[in-house]
Amino acid sequence: MNGARQPIGVFDSGIGGLTVVKALIEELPVESIVYFGDTARVPYGTKSKHTIVKFSLENVEFLLRFGVKCIVIACNTSSSWALPTLRKYFKVPIIGVIRPGALAAVRETRNKRIGVIGTNATIQSRAYETAIQRIDPAVKVFSGSCPLFVPLVEEGWLNGSISRQVAQRYLEPLKRQRIDTLILGCTHYPLLAETIQSVLGKDTVLIDSAKQTVAEVRGVLMGADTLRDQRVRPRYRFFVTDEPAHFSRISHRFLGRVIGSVERASLHG
Amino acid sequence: MNGARQPIGVFDSGIGGLTVVKALIEELPVESIVYFGDTARVPYGTKSKHTIVKFSLENVEFLLRFGVKCIVIACNTSSSWALPTLRKYFKVPIIGVIRPGALAAVRETRNKRIGVIGTNATIQSRAYETAIQRIDPAVKVFSGSCPLFVPLVEEGWLNGSISRQVAQRYLEPLKRQRIDTLILGCTHYPLLAETIQSVLGKDTVLIDSAKQTVAEVRGVLMGADTLRDQRVRPRYRFFVTDEPAHFSRISHRFLGRVIGSVERASLHG
Repeated sequence: MNGARQPIGVFDSGIGGLTVVKALIEELPVESIVYFGDTARVPYGTKSKHTIVKFSLENVEFLLRFGVKCIVIACNTSSSWALPTLRKYFKVPIIGVIRPGALAAVRETRNKRIGVIGTNATIQSRAYETAIQRIDPAVKVFSGSCPLFVPLVEEGWLNGSISRQVAQRYLEPLKRQRIDTLILGCTHYPLLAETIQSVLGKDTVLIDSAKQTVAEVRGVLMGADTLRDQRVRPRYRFFVTDEPAHFSRISHRFLGRVIGSVERASLHG
Repeated sequence: MNGARQPIGVFDSGIGGLTVVKALIEELPVESIVYFGDTARVPYGTKSKHTIVKFSLENVEFLLRFGVKCIVIACNTSSSWALPTLRKYFKVPIIGVIRPGALAAVRETRNKRIGVIGTNATIQSRAYETAIQRIDPAVKVFSGSCPLFVPLVEEGWLNGSISRQVAQRYLEPLKRQRIDTLILGCTHYPLLAETIQSVLGKDTVLIDSAKQTVAEVRGVLMGADTLRDQRVRPRYRFFVTDEPAHFSRISHRFLGRVIGSVERASLHG
């Protein structure tokens, strides 16, 4: 089942995980991908560990129907809370976005003061702190949740006075800690990068975990000898639990192109 | 099963429906209540009709396990899209928040220009327009969705510069239409009433559907002769699909008091 020809599975709480798909397509252009977005139950970031783990287990089970050779958790919240449990239950290699983001941040920081922003659940999990300090215990981590960032992105208010004020309110405490590197610990946040950068100043390095994650996917597939190397046309399938048409309509914001065919996934029965 | 001693069932996508419970307790203090908040799948207002109807059907089935004598849909989004389907499937009387809110607004308006604000789904459904124009076809209805209002309330940013600017952006188009009455078509919005009122001016009447809905509940129970009239101590039970402790912690914002015991509901098995 887990041969090189099998697709890579990707799941997310909704649409933001398409940024990871975009990076996968760019970096591993012959790999087929099955994407699952849990748009009927989105968001995860406001919910409890119990619920996030339960939903994540169901999402993996869905992807396993397609014989995926590995699974990427594109969602920071799910990676933060559910990854250890998923790895315990399933044999398929599972890659989260936390460690890749942490690695990239530790590589970038000069003053060893890293900021992390994410959903309430991601920040409460302290997953980034744990990962960063496992890599370099000398690094100081300062974190904060930014619950209004996802609604701002979904409203399309990426610049302007409101976004700027919200960003200031969330980021000032991190700025005061003199961080020189900030992990954008949620798939939606890179869309606010310009506003975030303008609040923090141009010298702060922003880390988008999506790009780093693909490097880890490549490594895992190479290690398992399941990297696809034929020059073939890959197949992309997209499943969502809510309305496919809506997902299709706004997919270009995250993927850089419109997805023609999105299918409705049924988790129960 | 549907006698006077049976509880009233109330469901909502999350916690906001507690404002309806608060009004029920004040107005019908001997009635027992079973509340169901779908906190694991909240919000509904960003999702499609298909998903909202599906979730609402499951919620009603859950409440029916308690032999409820009627069901109140405290959620505007669910009332907007699911009420006709629920009434078709179930015999138990089901009361939504749309018609009561529409009735109150038509009663208040002097210039016959009513504004409606709500979630994307509520506004797309045009449920308030339909209800208002069924009562008085001469009324003009102007509506707008306010996706950032719920996150603002959940962040606790009820006043201040950010809330005011967001409110201005959403409400200016309605103000320009010279509405004299505004339906707050989402259970969270009354918490922003002060900011909304300051943007629209003190002469605009704000309608909170929760209070109006209790009058309809009373009428339905009187009609069915199931109004409880004994002087007994009512029982209140609260079920949620996500973490009970979190619900319990923030319940006082909506209910005016802390709920000691919240139970976890399982919808599937």
